[in-house]
Amino acid sequence: MRIGIDLGGTNIKVGIIDNQGNIIAKSSIPTIVKRGVDLIIKDIIGQIEEILDTANIPLEKIKSIGIGVPGLVDKKTQRIIFATNLFWQNVKLGEIIEDYFNKPTYIINDGIAAALGEHIAGSTKGVKDSVLITLGTGVGGGFIVNGSIYNGGHGWGSEIGHMIVGENFYNCNCGQNGCWETFVSATALIMYVKKRISEGCNDSLIVKMVEGNLDNINGKTIFDGVKKEDKLALETMDRFIKYLAIGIVNIYNILDPDSIVIGGGLAKAGSHILDPLKEEVGKRVFYKGVKYGDIVLAKLGNDGGIIGAGFLDTIPSIIP
Amino acid sequence: MRIGIDLGGTNIKVGIIDNQGNIIAKSSIPTIVKRGVDLIIKDIIGQIEEILDTANIPLEKIKSIGIGVPGLVDKKTQRIIFATNLFWQNVKLGEIIEDYFNKPTYIINDGIAAALGEHIAGSTKGVKDSVLITLGTGVGGGFIVNGSIYNGGHGWGSEIGHMIVGENFYNCNCGQNGCWETFVSATALIMYVKKRISEGCNDSLIVKMVEGNLDNINGKTIFDGVKKEDKLALETMDRFIKYLAIGIVNIYNILDPDSIVIGGGLAKAGSHILDPLKEEVGKRVFYKGVKYGDIVLAKLGNDGGIIGAGFLDTIPSIIP
Repeated sequence: MRIGIDLGGTNIKVGIIDNQGNIIAKSSIPTIVKRGVDLIIKDIIGQIEEILDTANIPLEKIKSIGIGVPGLVDKKTQRIIFATNLFWQNVKLGEIIEDYFNKPTYIINDGIAAALGEHIAGSTKGVKDSVLITLGTGVGGGFIVNGSIYNGGHGWGSEIGHMIVGENFYNCNCGQNGCWETFVSATALIMYVKKRISEGCNDSLIVKMVEGNLDNINGKTIFDGVKKEDKLALETMDRFIKYLAIGIVNIYNILDPDSIVIGGGLAKAGSHILDPLKEEVGKRVFYKGVKYGDIVLAKLGNDGGIIGAGFLDTIPSIIP
Repeated sequence: MRIGIDLGGTNIKVGIIDNQGNIIAKSSIPTIVKRGVDLIIKDIIGQIEEILDTANIPLEKIKSIGIGVPGLVDKKTQRIIFATNLFWQNVKLGEIIEDYFNKPTYIINDGIAAALGEHIAGSTKGVKDSVLITLGTGVGGGFIVNGSIYNGGHGWGSEIGHMIVGENFYNCNCGQNGCWETFVSATALIMYVKKRISEGCNDSLIVKMVEGNLDNINGKTIFDGVKKEDKLALETMDRFIKYLAIGIVNIYNILDPDSIVIGGGLAKAGSHILDPLKEEVGKRVFYKGVKYGDIVLAKLGNDGGIIGAGFLDTIPSIIP
């Protein structure tokens, strides 16, 4: 058995995973960001102890611990270089957890953990080359190449949310203009709808659905608007599908994976995204005479990150 | 010894390469595209026979033959799927050459061959992870990952010239708008200068340098204009550096290589490109606190493709 942890900006999720990749116990506590590094690490330790206790599993049965984190991880030192939403910089999380529990502990970016989860037990089980795209508040990614993790020489790779794909009306948190996540994240959809409402699209159903309180617009509001054929929702969806297709064709042209997996909160829209996306991608591929990778939905939802993190001891990096 | 071939839209270059990666004999003949597939293949065969004869090297001493081609190659069947400038589609070039000479023969995209050449005997010798960018008429690429070739599951990867990075005033040959090569190839520079002249920048030195015949504008004209501080040339150079930096930061964020090598005709401008490029890239990296890959110039010029093609039998693909 293994322990997999998904350290997010909102929740810390801990799971005990069996050797087949099934979660046999799971817990979630809020990430209280303002508590700071030391206390949050204490929270994680406490949560691990509690789940082992509750599930009545002795620590000896645990082979390893893996943690997916929302930030950049140095693959050599296993330190978190930075995690924006946590306001963490240069944190030896792996070392601290490893010392405390005396178990091999691995840290990786959460997009990669989710890609690994799908590879172990989800939609890309048995597929050797895959790219996971998580469409949530931001856009994350993880690459599996020939069954191994591929995130570059230092570990700064697979940050596909910061691939520049165009010019946009607002800048990305990273300081650049045109990052993919400013076009295809939930945040991007909301930003675009608000902008268009401020430009005069006040008659949109979206405005009515949130009773005029634009702060209540979320991904679901927009997808509900699409179902009701609201003009602004449809326009927003068209733009979203266009840029999602552009980024995916970029991934085809750069990485040429066998499978592209769409995960994250927006993936809940399922075929409402997948069908128009496949059509748009088909129009945009570099050469129409050959087969490119399949585009599929993630299967594991939020569990993917926990499972993938748990299996970090079993999957090498393609660059040692 | 090995034979390496660079099959280009303008010339066919054949080299005999020793085991250290030195070219010991080399020949070049024009690619007469209108002769069509069969006669061009005959030309290649004749050129191989002639160079062996001239260099007085018997065929038995040749271990393998490798060919870099300007197009998409199916890694499983070793067929050229298409090569735009040659007007070739579905050509069993590898099979034909292999059958004729009875030597193991390998075919690969020319950008990858050039990347491999630099890895074997050029600027990335000893570097395990590198990306070569060729800035010529178009933009090509080749990735070396952990010492192996990485071009995806089917062989459609590393086509970085068709990574979409913005919106442009003209479409790419591939049918898309915003491909990197429409911003940073020699063609792109010429297109931009001509557009600006047509918009009224007639007082540019560039117009004088070509004596009013805009068809004579080339990469060198523009770089000469930069040296003379011509306003339009400087504007064109700024735009070029901006988009070159955007694409390189995309490569950092996606692939995180140890080295990025700039090759192709425009690389002849050397530090005139490299110095402003490094400055611009430094402003645009995702996280300023970590080290990203070095940016260096290719060392082998046109020979890189020949050397890399010749060594295809020694370097595996990271995806079998």
